[in-house]
Amino acid sequence: MTFAATVLTLYPEMFPGPLGISLAGRGLAEGRWSLDTVQIRDFATDKHRTVDDTPAGGGAGMVLKPDILAAACDSVGYDRPMLAMTPRGAPLTQQRVRELAAGPGVSILCGRFEGFDERLFEARAIEPVSIGDYVLSGGEMGALVLLDACIRLLPGVMGAPSSGDDESFESGLLEYPQYTRPVIWEGRTIPEVLRSGDHARIAAWRKSMAETDTRLRRPDLWERHEGARVQSPSGARQKKDE
Amino acid sequence: MTFAATVLTLYPEMFPGPLGISLAGRGLAEGRWSLDTVQIRDFATDKHRTVDDTPAGGGAGMVLKPDILAAACDSVGYDRPMLAMTPRGAPLTQQRVRELAAGPGVSILCGRFEGFDERLFEARAIEPVSIGDYVLSGGEMGALVLLDACIRLLPGVMGAPSSGDDESFESGLLEYPQYTRPVIWEGRTIPEVLRSGDHARIAAWRKSMAETDTRLRRPDLWERHEGARVQSPSGARQKKDE
Repeated sequence: MTFAATVLTLYPEMFPGPLGISLAGRGLAEGRWSLDTVQIRDFATDKHRTVDDTPAGGGAGMVLKPDILAAACDSVGYDRPMLAMTPRGAPLTQQRVRELAAGPGVSILCGRFEGFDERLFEARAIEPVSIGDYVLSGGEMGALVLLDACIRLLPGVMGAPSSGDDESFESGLLEYPQYTRPVIWEGRTIPEVLRSGDHARIAAWRKSMAETDTRLRRPDLWERHEGARVQSPSGARQKKDE
Repeated sequence: MTFAATVLTLYPEMFPGPLGISLAGRGLAEGRWSLDTVQIRDFATDKHRTVDDTPAGGGAGMVLKPDILAAACDSVGYDRPMLAMTPRGAPLTQQRVRELAAGPGVSILCGRFEGFDERLFEARAIEPVSIGDYVLSGGEMGALVLLDACIRLLPGVMGAPSSGDDESFESGLLEYPQYTRPVIWEGRTIPEVLRSGDHARIAAWRKSMAETDTRLRRPDLWERHEGARVQSPSGARQKKDE
């Protein structure tokens, strides 16, 4: 089944953009995913094709009107999850990416200016999502990121289906450090264990490095990882055997 | 001064891509920022133009070679901050974006496959950065996100220079909810306070909503915000007056 993506935006010409190149682009050409864009402005009702208005209560910028946004979203429908990219949304996680990639597709509403009229989220089943704690010029970059993360998980898009199992966040940890030839580069040698051929030692070293790096670099991830282990002592093992 | 961006990538044709459109595109045309790309493959030394090799110790995928990467980075130089997009990096924050946007520009190294040989980060002044806790097909989407976040802060790129002060993360909180006309939409009315014309009440309501939404939606941000306040009781006020 084809993973169907629909992007609702004021800039449909941004798509597929970088998703039309490399693995995602080949997947698109091969029909492993499909892409539609909806121009939000087509749902404006006045002759100036207005989509925004000044913020209630004052302030800089413009806010996207709820009636126009709802009409655009309703035209796509809610058979697939409808996400709206906004810094007020829930942080995107690899788990949510996996869920979306396993489903029929996704619709993504992209904001601009000061964002969406809040009533949209009360009146429609739209999931506000954030790709990180920084501010972008619009939701389009977020949509590209979200789609790229999903598309690489679709069957047939990545070369080897086993690629991905050891990656960062798949086990709730950062990935272990990687090395490749030359064995000695600028006086720096690949760690001896990785050249030992001893698969058990290598696996133990990688697990230990993933844990150490996560603890030192990302205490927030480490805390969540340890919290999950405390709640369910066999959780780590179960995850691995799934 | 022009903010100078250089992207080191295996897919230079992905740039400027969406950054060539809308506000960022106009800023590029007007010379408010500049963009160069460096094809990493140009630094390969064999006739097959090889840039990667199998992971030391085994495993799926390919790792980018340290000698090729270092040659590509050295060709750009380290006068501007050099960032590498990788899920093992430090999470990108709005504060780091502000610092970068205030500087001379940025160089961004984009990985593919299983990532970079770790020795690169020991041997060169390269800052590993992550845009979020999910896995992408390569660093290019991250570079687009990072550049978009910086570019919108450059003088003359956004319409009104005051846009941005109240936005999510600028004060360590999510932005308050926004509303615009129609006043009544599908039976839902814009909150009365926003229609009162009482600027003090509106400001107090917005502050309270920003705090409530952050506490409920992003306990992690809220904890950091409260931690900063405890360390410096006058911190919030100082920030506002800066």
